[in-house]
Amino acid sequence: MTLDDKWFTEISVSSGTAFSLKLTHKVHEEQTPYQHIAIYETEAFGTLMTIDGCIMLSDRDNFIYHEMLSHPALFSHPDPKQVVIIGGGDCGTLREVLKHPGVENVRQIELDERVTRLAERYFPDLCESNCDQRAKLQFIDGIQWMADASPNSIDIIIIDSTDPVGPAEGLFSLPFYKNCHSALRQNGLLVQQSESPLVHMDIIKAMYHAFQSAGFSAVSTFNFPQCVYPSGWWSATMAAKPGIEQSLRAFREQDTSNKSFETEYYNAAIHRAALATPEFFKRCLSKY
Amino acid sequence: MTLDDKWFTEISVSSGTAFSLKLTHKVHEEQTPYQHIAIYETEAFGTLMTIDGCIMLSDRDNFIYHEMLSHPALFSHPDPKQVVIIGGGDCGTLREVLKHPGVENVRQIELDERVTRLAERYFPDLCESNCDQRAKLQFIDGIQWMADASPNSIDIIIIDSTDPVGPAEGLFSLPFYKNCHSALRQNGLLVQQSESPLVHMDIIKAMYHAFQSAGFSAVSTFNFPQCVYPSGWWSATMAAKPGIEQSLRAFREQDTSNKSFETEYYNAAIHRAALATPEFFKRCLSKY
Repeated sequence: MTLDDKWFTEISVSSGTAFSLKLTHKVHEEQTPYQHIAIYETEAFGTLMTIDGCIMLSDRDNFIYHEMLSHPALFSHPDPKQVVIIGGGDCGTLREVLKHPGVENVRQIELDERVTRLAERYFPDLCESNCDQRAKLQFIDGIQWMADASPNSIDIIIIDSTDPVGPAEGLFSLPFYKNCHSALRQNGLLVQQSESPLVHMDIIKAMYHAFQSAGFSAVSTFNFPQCVYPSGWWSATMAAKPGIEQSLRAFREQDTSNKSFETEYYNAAIHRAALATPEFFKRCLSKY
Repeated sequence: MTLDDKWFTEISVSSGTAFSLKLTHKVHEEQTPYQHIAIYETEAFGTLMTIDGCIMLSDRDNFIYHEMLSHPALFSHPDPKQVVIIGGGDCGTLREVLKHPGVENVRQIELDERVTRLAERYFPDLCESNCDQRAKLQFIDGIQWMADASPNSIDIIIIDSTDPVGPAEGLFSLPFYKNCHSALRQNGLLVQQSESPLVHMDIIKAMYHAFQSAGFSAVSTFNFPQCVYPSGWWSATMAAKPGIEQSLRAFREQDTSNKSFETEYYNAAIHRAALATPEFFKRCLSKY
């Protein structure tokens, strides 16, 4: 089979795979100071946003990614009040974080304001909490922001970035992780999207090394499906400061079961399930 | 991005998606009395088998599918001795089933002998247990075989087929399920690959209806990643006869933890995890 020009295709060079969505039409495209953003309507996945030729999100399956990048971390921390999102310009993660009534303040630090402005227009559901009084959106460099952050000031840092190439490369680096470690409070947690367990174990291993070098004493990866990303299987990795290692696996299950908001994918059983580690993954990380 | 002729692409028309693997070369192709089979070498996924333009398996990720189609069912049944595989011509599921020392007899009923002969040649690892004295390979129609099967004679039926179109359509039908129900012993279980929870919920719902109509009293779906199948997220569904409903969720965890063989994906935590049900899935099946 060959694909005509009615398809958007993203090639993952390192894994020798490609994923395509059938389009109905292009809705918008622009070159921002940082990247090329395009918006399409697809035949069966709703609206699609791409950045520099890579799929960022679709209407149909973004709920899994956004729920899994937020709720596991928030239900792992004993009482999160101060949350910072680095990246996350489509505001889907922000919306999920704001569902937690105990959260007092969420700062979203996105480099490219145009991502958020286009999300407001083309993914309005994801942006429905942007005017929440607890939310503060800033459009500046997250790496610099974290270097300047007050020590011991944040409960949870969520790193919701593109892949570790180009502008996001520094978000997977030891200096950045050290600054995150410093900015986190005593019970603080960091969670970061960590690519595919099937085809990116080299990236995950490097992250484990860097987290450990930055002073985090517990690191735990959880997995979830994400159709539009390479291999269709994705992960996020949490890192905790010394003293609260157990919280990464012993989350607030009772609170999760009694949560006051609805989700489409996440629940207590899914949280436990996401933490299960496949055999090959254990072997690969046994000597990290 | 467009893909040149160095790629094998499978289009999933109903989900408006396509998945592609980069090839190095075609190794073999033939038209059998039933279907067109092709074997390729890929750049990063090892050897690839396709049937009628659909990806059947790759070296790199078939371990997840084969382990999940066998071990959850075998560790859910209290003491499986007589196992029947319908389809499964690549013999990967057969190999996993034969790892269970308590299994006395495995009959594999594959329609197309050429699938197995090509697997023996191009996927020798998957066929390494084909000469086990407990294994009996027959190349006949599984639907007819099940209609003729002795009542109360089988502990586990594994339906490892292609999608519910073409030759495999009858393997997703009420008459076939009724014959499976009749052939199963008192504690018997059936497990069948059941497509993608993200893009094939209509098929899963229809299966639930048909299982119930056939007399199965408990039905349970479990999920796992499978990169080369549409959406990258796949499922299998188990059905149990009345009286052993609880076994589908309360599997032999101790035996799983003490299993005498190695796996690459499956373990007790993964088994529990696979049974976790996403919120959207619960809602979709709440009135099945």
